[in-house]
Amino acid sequence: MSPLSSRRLHLNAFLMGVGHHEAAWRHPRADPSRLTDVRHYQNLARIAERGRLDSVFFADGLALWGNVGYNALGAPEPLTLLAAIATATEHIGLIATVSTTYNEPFHVARKFASLDHISKGRAGWNIVTSAGEAEARNFGIERPAHADRYARATEFLDVVTKLWDSWEDDAILADRGTGAYADTARIHPVEHAGEHFLVRGPLNISRPPQGRPLLVQAGSSEDGKEFAARHAEAVFTAQQTLREGQDFYADLKGRLARYGRTPGELLILPGISPIIGATEREALALEKELEDLTNPEYGLAQLSNILGVDLSGLPLDGPLPEIAETTEGQQSRQRLVLDLARREGLTIRQVLGRLAGGRGHRVVAGTPEQIAGQIEEWFRDGAADGFNVMPPILPGGLEDFVDHVVPILQGKGLFRMEYEGRTLRENYGLARPASRYAASRVETRDAAVAS
Amino acid sequence: MSPLSSRRLHLNAFLMGVGHHEAAWRHPRADPSRLTDVRHYQNLARIAERGRLDSVFFADGLALWGNVGYNALGAPEPLTLLAAIATATEHIGLIATVSTTYNEPFHVARKFASLDHISKGRAGWNIVTSAGEAEARNFGIERPAHADRYARATEFLDVVTKLWDSWEDDAILADRGTGAYADTARIHPVEHAGEHFLVRGPLNISRPPQGRPLLVQAGSSEDGKEFAARHAEAVFTAQQTLREGQDFYADLKGRLARYGRTPGELLILPGISPIIGATEREALALEKELEDLTNPEYGLAQLSNILGVDLSGLPLDGPLPEIAETTEGQQSRQRLVLDLARREGLTIRQVLGRLAGGRGHRVVAGTPEQIAGQIEEWFRDGAADGFNVMPPILPGGLEDFVDHVVPILQGKGLFRMEYEGRTLRENYGLARPASRYAASRVETRDAAVAS
Repeated sequence: MSPLSSRRLHLNAFLMGVGHHEAAWRHPRADPSRLTDVRHYQNLARIAERGRLDSVFFADGLALWGNVGYNALGAPEPLTLLAAIATATEHIGLIATVSTTYNEPFHVARKFASLDHISKGRAGWNIVTSAGEAEARNFGIERPAHADRYARATEFLDVVTKLWDSWEDDAILADRGTGAYADTARIHPVEHAGEHFLVRGPLNISRPPQGRPLLVQAGSSEDGKEFAARHAEAVFTAQQTLREGQDFYADLKGRLARYGRTPGELLILPGISPIIGATEREALALEKELEDLTNPEYGLAQLSNILGVDLSGLPLDGPLPEIAETTEGQQSRQRLVLDLARREGLTIRQVLGRLAGGRGHRVVAGTPEQIAGQIEEWFRDGAADGFNVMPPILPGGLEDFVDHVVPILQGKGLFRMEYEGRTLRENYGLARPASRYAASRVETRDAAVAS
Repeated sequence: MSPLSSRRLHLNAFLMGVGHHEAAWRHPRADPSRLTDVRHYQNLARIAERGRLDSVFFADGLALWGNVGYNALGAPEPLTLLAAIATATEHIGLIATVSTTYNEPFHVARKFASLDHISKGRAGWNIVTSAGEAEARNFGIERPAHADRYARATEFLDVVTKLWDSWEDDAILADRGTGAYADTARIHPVEHAGEHFLVRGPLNISRPPQGRPLLVQAGSSEDGKEFAARHAEAVFTAQQTLREGQDFYADLKGRLARYGRTPGELLILPGISPIIGATEREALALEKELEDLTNPEYGLAQLSNILGVDLSGLPLDGPLPEIAETTEGQQSRQRLVLDLARREGLTIRQVLGRLAGGRGHRVVAGTPEQIAGQIEEWFRDGAADGFNVMPPILPGGLEDFVDHVVPILQGKGLFRMEYEGRTLRENYGLARPASRYAASRVETRDAAVAS
């Protein structure tokens, strides 16, 4: 029996406003007035839970990105929103993006611990280092260089995990008789003193139900991949072709051993924006309908920004000009777009269409069978442990996926019929980490006994 | 007809773990295992809403304060918790404490705007400057001096209100036909450049339903009162006697004119911890029962800390020693405790009992009629616009208040039978602020027309 038979796919619903397609808000199936309506997001999470998806996820930025003149921007802050979603759901994981560049570890440790308690073990943290210039301007600092951001992120994560570990699992006694609330020997100051942070601790909330909320990451630069190999338990990534997906998968999994980790300790979930129709013709018609609702002027400005070259005035139905690759900032997205355009010989207008749909993630238009087939192929052929599903329109596109694609994946034995566990870690099949302080206390005690 | 007849009392439920009394967690009516259970807090907010209370409120600190060996510490972070409570309630205001010393204005503006959207206009911010030494150690800085903390708070608030104002109320067009999502002329960079902050803006979420979430404050130092007079719309305060309450009330209301504000623009809510019994004897028995559950050793350490003098070894049934008053840090709490002990001739043990119950706030044990009588007296005699209700045990003490005290206040015509409005501002009777940018844009347009 192949080990594949017991291997299960993991599915995350990447939620973004009223849909991932940039023109979703103009489509009759979307309602842009729900962008700040918590019931909209609770409804999305319940749909995902009905489909037994592992988790929902919100990206984030700390500035008003893009052009709000054309785009439906301004959803609530992810952690606040996920706390409200937690109480409307029972099983689904709740993953929020939070930056290590513009935050303090004490706050971040505490907020995720709070969300993990509120959700009874369903919190996950998508760790980002915030590449944007606009974000730096909202925090009064110069944008730090790439390597500096990752150095800070590494120390940040060290502090956060220390704080999560600072209360051992059994620190609370709550002994009404003696009046002893906690065993203070099991609550540890973390006394962190590093290059970026001085944090005494302990945290002011007990250990999260998962021990540590799930650590997620999405950077695909060299620093990003190394950070993921060392720390991440799930990785969201943008890969356009099976070959690219396989290369990324093999590359990242291959880096784990140097940190003493096994391939099963990190799950790789490429993005997929499924444009679903009952027939292929219907799916393509929906794709075209959305493309016709985009604003080429806005798209061209965005593409110019990604490529670092002013494209205005160029004919939309001609090819992209020759562009020298840059090395700082957006380089992975620049390369992705250039490769995509060259490989498929796309015109500028066609590139705009792809970006409008998935912002660099793979867009697949087809029937539920075709979408499920793509997912199965990548999963079986070493390109994915699961997928980061990015519905073009919300809630409709998520309903289509849950009602029509998920049952096919379940029928193939690739996806769960019921949740395996109670926490996000359990559903992702990942171990619950022990507190580092519990271990050291036991060792100290053993040493004392031995001496 | 006296103007008092139309004046209505405002009631805030100050929620703290399983009760305000330090020994609450040991009492049979409390369940300490619910300290991190979101359903416990949702239940408390629903009870308060059943009583038509204006709001619920969480205090906060950024360190593990007090002694967790004896005290049930470690509730979830307030903003995260209130987002979860928002979706379980419809009317009640949601007030979270957030520090201006250890945060960034962009995050704070965004999180409160998010909570205000999620709750459809029920968010309030209790602004604190974090006096504690332990907090500074979790953020790697020296504790700033009192005046510096207030200078930062003043600029912080300026930035936050600019960010809340940065989208005018009518900025979103969502015109599907033309594809115009927002009128970018109505979304303003704030371009703040001050002594503490450089923030470009605009915020990345639209204007909160209340325009600006309610601004609450609780400092009673000279800087604190001046800050409140300038900015706060509701003030929580600890006052032990009617006379002290009247003096504070007159002092603070008297400061408003210099900022061009009227007395009705700031509500003063002293704290009251009501220990309620069907008879006075029952109430006093409950007070004694809670006192017997406290740990005098822990209380003595806490009192030593407040007074800045080591009291260990002194006889509990003797008086407090003579103590010189200090001028920095805890001075307002120190004075409050010394005044209380002198006025009532309390022994050390009796002082400990009062602190265990209300941490410096007024503790009143009695029947529902007696509690309602006290509330009415302070309200009618110029000491209060309402009360910050601190039940000794949660949920039981809040249920007693809602079921037995509130109906008496309603019967006297002092308290609402139904919510007057839909937002926290409307229920507190406070105006919705206009965006400063909308005003300047209109003025610019008028000037252009006039010239």
